[in-house]
Amino acid sequence: VHESELSADAVSLGLYSHYMQKETFEQPEVVANTLQMVSGAQSISPLLFGTQADDVFRNTQNILILACGTSYHAAMVARYWIEEVAHIPVNVEIASEYRYRTSVPLPNTLIITLSQSGETADTIAALQHAKNVHNGLAATTLSICNVPESALIRQSQLRFLTRAGPEIGVASTKAFTTQLSALFVLTLVLAKIKGSLSVAKEEEYLNQLRHLPAAMAQVLLLEPQIIEWAKSFVDKQHALFLGRGIHWPIAMEGALKLKEITYIHAESYAAGELKHGPLALVDERMPVIAIAPNDTLIEKLKSNLQEVRARSGELYIFADRDTFIEPAEGVHVINLPDHAGFLSPILHTLPLQLLAYHTAVARGTDVDKPRNLAKSVTVE
Amino acid sequence: VHESELSADAVSLGLYSHYMQKETFEQPEVVANTLQMVSGAQSISPLLFGTQADDVFRNTQNILILACGTSYHAAMVARYWIEEVAHIPVNVEIASEYRYRTSVPLPNTLIITLSQSGETADTIAALQHAKNVHNGLAATTLSICNVPESALIRQSQLRFLTRAGPEIGVASTKAFTTQLSALFVLTLVLAKIKGSLSVAKEEEYLNQLRHLPAAMAQVLLLEPQIIEWAKSFVDKQHALFLGRGIHWPIAMEGALKLKEITYIHAESYAAGELKHGPLALVDERMPVIAIAPNDTLIEKLKSNLQEVRARSGELYIFADRDTFIEPAEGVHVINLPDHAGFLSPILHTLPLQLLAYHTAVARGTDVDKPRNLAKSVTVE
Repeated sequence: VHESELSADAVSLGLYSHYMQKETFEQPEVVANTLQMVSGAQSISPLLFGTQADDVFRNTQNILILACGTSYHAAMVARYWIEEVAHIPVNVEIASEYRYRTSVPLPNTLIITLSQSGETADTIAALQHAKNVHNGLAATTLSICNVPESALIRQSQLRFLTRAGPEIGVASTKAFTTQLSALFVLTLVLAKIKGSLSVAKEEEYLNQLRHLPAAMAQVLLLEPQIIEWAKSFVDKQHALFLGRGIHWPIAMEGALKLKEITYIHAESYAAGELKHGPLALVDERMPVIAIAPNDTLIEKLKSNLQEVRARSGELYIFADRDTFIEPAEGVHVINLPDHAGFLSPILHTLPLQLLAYHTAVARGTDVDKPRNLAKSVTVE
Repeated sequence: VHESELSADAVSLGLYSHYMQKETFEQPEVVANTLQMVSGAQSISPLLFGTQADDVFRNTQNILILACGTSYHAAMVARYWIEEVAHIPVNVEIASEYRYRTSVPLPNTLIITLSQSGETADTIAALQHAKNVHNGLAATTLSICNVPESALIRQSQLRFLTRAGPEIGVASTKAFTTQLSALFVLTLVLAKIKGSLSVAKEEEYLNQLRHLPAAMAQVLLLEPQIIEWAKSFVDKQHALFLGRGIHWPIAMEGALKLKEITYIHAESYAAGELKHGPLALVDERMPVIAIAPNDTLIEKLKSNLQEVRARSGELYIFADRDTFIEPAEGVHVINLPDHAGFLSPILHTLPLQLLAYHTAVARGTDVDKPRNLAKSVTVE
């Protein structure tokens, strides 16, 4: 008899109203679990990804990440991280697009697949396709999943298991942030092997990772303020999510969450593209949610937001505290802690999950089982 | 005295109601003008891109395309073309994202910038940034613009001038299809130099290019049917555009056109991503516009469309005639000519432009000068 590994605790709702809320609030803990091997160590080791990982990473010259949906957004963040910190070129492709197109395979490619379940049909097929087209080109494979013994894990040389525990809500929350945590660890491992991570930097990033669960818990305390905001979204038909750089994929994820469980038509844009079209949509009925970390792009973002405001768009800004963006008529601001550097995308994800959740609750939709969607897309 | 090169003919509206309509209908002619040097020749020559082009292309190992807005969609189509036909790896980046991120430069990169005006601020800055980070890596530059003597043209080694003539409507139409025509010519030139274009294939593609303006004119004859469809869009608040593969960027362009001039919240998705979120939006109020070319993905697309229909989404399908997709309750079909192979994205663009145009006219918006938008985004 094979006993289920799900503990009663893992599947009972406890004090929460929905699995999505429970899973959102589990994130500090499951990210800590996912990072356990890292946080306890003095330095970061490729062994986290498997016994062959050191050799594999040493030979890696190119990276291709294949994913769908929320996992695709994690992949996009990873691209910014890996290129900036580890200096390895990264391509990110939607699995269903990649598997059917004629692409040019590069030598010594590490093919990474991301999927919560490890059973996403398009991602499995994309991995097989990638192996075929990279045949003879010294390709290697790594899968980051939340389910051991899943198809992707079985079909990959290297693996990293996130420890999110069972995710029951259809809209992914903790699977996403644990994926991101795993991908940042991967970034550091690659950077170290490629000689682009100083000992001092390694120590600094490890400290940031150790502090991450506490920082996440702090952000989740913003729930009451977000519940207030959610009231303004109940009657909305539309929303625009803006981010720049590494937070652009987080804007995409925020829009996807809102779309999935509230059925509000939310769309995301890289803020720099605003003037190239979407600004035409902005009027008093189009709330604009902006992710405003205090990074080098903050002044550019502020200028984008002024454009929105000048067209009567109502602004909802999630700002790092040290941006000192002030609330004003039509400008709502929720402050996050001071800027968290490379880990900022993980922190900025949380309020967007809460906004989607509380808006859905206020609208009375079936939060954990939104219409038309399945938890794992195991058919094409 | 420097006389304007604009002929009276080029700026008078003639029989058309708006510049956008005029410019849409000029496309067969301006594409023919853009392709003039190609269509008249027995074979395709790198000289079309400048005297140094043969050398430059021979040394090209990687391609990076930088663009914004509509030009970004053209770049995405080019990626599919170039990788499949010329076997050179292509990266496409939004100019405003690229210029501010730390990316990994690849050796022997041909940096291509696309812009109608050649004066798009973010694209100019991205080109400068790309030159800096590729310093010492044997990078070369090519700009495809519609305006001679523009900043991008002056700052690039190679150039190709589209001959769209002045484009006055803010929503780009003929600039896009002439860009695409130029990019397909580039694809053929690169493929020929890289030895991946047989004489027979070259002849076949040249014939297709010669036939392209006539095929475009034939598609524009669909206007009366599209005017009928536009009536159903007058009261719509939302629209979803779906495409797969090389037609995914065309779905993006179709959504952008509708958004820009009708202010309907239109969004596009690679059809394979439908089940990963956007399907939750689909109900009887969400019209879904599908681009259905008769290519290898048509059966997959039909299955995506069945999912939409099962959720009461109203379908508007632009189908190649040889797909034999039949109209039914809630399924509207406009047939294009038989599948045009690699040039299909150019043909499938036209009905989407007309749909946006006639919906805007029916809604009474200022078609040629939509709110909030400028023709050329010459500031950041």
